[in-house]
Amino acid sequence: MPDNKQGVAYVDHKLVPISEAKISLLDWGFLHSDATYDVVHVWRGKFFRLDDHLERFCSGMEKLHMQVSYSPDELKSILKNCVKATGLQNAYVEMITTRGQPEQGSRDPRSCTNQFFAFAIPFVWISKPDEGLNLIVSQRQRIPPGSIDPSIKNYHWLDLVMGQYEAYDKGAETVVLTDENGFIKEGPGFNIFAVKDSTLTTPATGVLEGITRKTVIELASTKGYEIVQGNLSEAGVLDADEVFATSTAGGVMPVTQVNSQVIGSGSIGPITQILKNAYWGLHDDVRYSCPVASV
Amino acid sequence: MPDNKQGVAYVDHKLVPISEAKISLLDWGFLHSDATYDVVHVWRGKFFRLDDHLERFCSGMEKLHMQVSYSPDELKSILKNCVKATGLQNAYVEMITTRGQPEQGSRDPRSCTNQFFAFAIPFVWISKPDEGLNLIVSQRQRIPPGSIDPSIKNYHWLDLVMGQYEAYDKGAETVVLTDENGFIKEGPGFNIFAVKDSTLTTPATGVLEGITRKTVIELASTKGYEIVQGNLSEAGVLDADEVFATSTAGGVMPVTQVNSQVIGSGSIGPITQILKNAYWGLHDDVRYSCPVASV
Repeated sequence: MPDNKQGVAYVDHKLVPISEAKISLLDWGFLHSDATYDVVHVWRGKFFRLDDHLERFCSGMEKLHMQVSYSPDELKSILKNCVKATGLQNAYVEMITTRGQPEQGSRDPRSCTNQFFAFAIPFVWISKPDEGLNLIVSQRQRIPPGSIDPSIKNYHWLDLVMGQYEAYDKGAETVVLTDENGFIKEGPGFNIFAVKDSTLTTPATGVLEGITRKTVIELASTKGYEIVQGNLSEAGVLDADEVFATSTAGGVMPVTQVNSQVIGSGSIGPITQILKNAYWGLHDDVRYSCPVASV
Repeated sequence: MPDNKQGVAYVDHKLVPISEAKISLLDWGFLHSDATYDVVHVWRGKFFRLDDHLERFCSGMEKLHMQVSYSPDELKSILKNCVKATGLQNAYVEMITTRGQPEQGSRDPRSCTNQFFAFAIPFVWISKPDEGLNLIVSQRQRIPPGSIDPSIKNYHWLDLVMGQYEAYDKGAETVVLTDENGFIKEGPGFNIFAVKDSTLTTPATGVLEGITRKTVIELASTKGYEIVQGNLSEAGVLDADEVFATSTAGGVMPVTQVNSQVIGSGSIGPITQILKNAYWGLHDDVRYSCPVASV
């Protein structure tokens, strides 16, 4: 008997244990990575910024000429039911729309019926809480916006995966990729910030517009820090007082080594700590979070 | 009762009807498009250039740090069994290796057990035989080699799919994408050639090294045509005497319209016809093809 605490998925209009959650081998979501998705988290029984995630998800579908038969409220209800069925208080909740399968013999994406999937699994941390990330800057180019609009959250990750292997070879645990001019873009599942003299710099373009990134920008602004959304160079990161990563999978996470060089004091910096505390504090703010039970 | 003529897949070490062929929603082959694949075709009961396809497939796995427990001979045997089970004489046969699923809570691809899949379905044509393709040149950039090595056959296709929608908007049926300098690269599942004064030009870099492309280059060389593997501009295509596409899904296919402009005579050109005939002729050559029954 599968354990629902491992996760529950919504597939073919019903809930199934995550171990039974499957997609057709012929779905273009797999064969052409022709899909968009979003991940929202549940912390202590509450969704965080669910409406923002749904808005981005629906916007991605529209840009990809996809549609599903569910209203935003129905989508919320499906996500809620996945989480409830797991019984988890802290969960990683993913919603996915794929192109589906074209008519036999056709290669026309317009002949596909788009497919919707969702699942809730235990909360995922990109880095172990309270440990600093050790990353490298790779010269591998993040897939550019001229190829794929990064505002559409997508599964085109082979560049990021190859970057991870490069990091392992160099004794690090993760990576940030760069653009054709060498400016830093993003890592596998996270945005990046550098702090210097109380100014936060984060790449403006060619990156996913992360909800945690957005939250940190809002929080930093409220606290009076200057924020620059613009070019971030490798030197700018190496010379920073503090560096941190942001992700739905872990929130605000200190980066303590870059290219084998210790950043700042080598542990979480004071501004990172302030933003991390403020980020988790928002999880009790009704403007940002809503109980799974009440959705 | 599913009809095996629709296709048969090899999943979890056994053959299943294609309608039952599924992959876990959590496999990174889906969630991160972290996979490589190859497609070989069977024509009149014979595999075409099977060894070349297997070599490219195994090379792609190696570059992605993936491995499967099958020897090349065992892989051949699996593909053969898929085709035999369908009873098809003309088939599209795909082999796939995915990263698999990391340990629970981990994001380390090294913790994954790679997964192998294969399937045989009825032969797929990119264009209807004997009809010319009508395509556009898009300014959308094909994912560059600095991001993903195109010699690893991969599912990163959202740029190509978005290009297809652009083609539909402009009344065409398919597309070729370009690079950051505007040079033509490739289309969804095909390489491209332009013929001018008996010289064939095809992009050298930033494209999949197609087996059909390779076959055409070999054939054209044998027949004394000059071949340039180099930059191919939009003007070079529009000004060409003939344009054709190459793919395992259809062989040598004439392109008769580019950006709504008729190419050459508007039907298949003489050199394209010669190469097309020669290509299909090789299917009876024992150096290139082997009967499914004898593999």
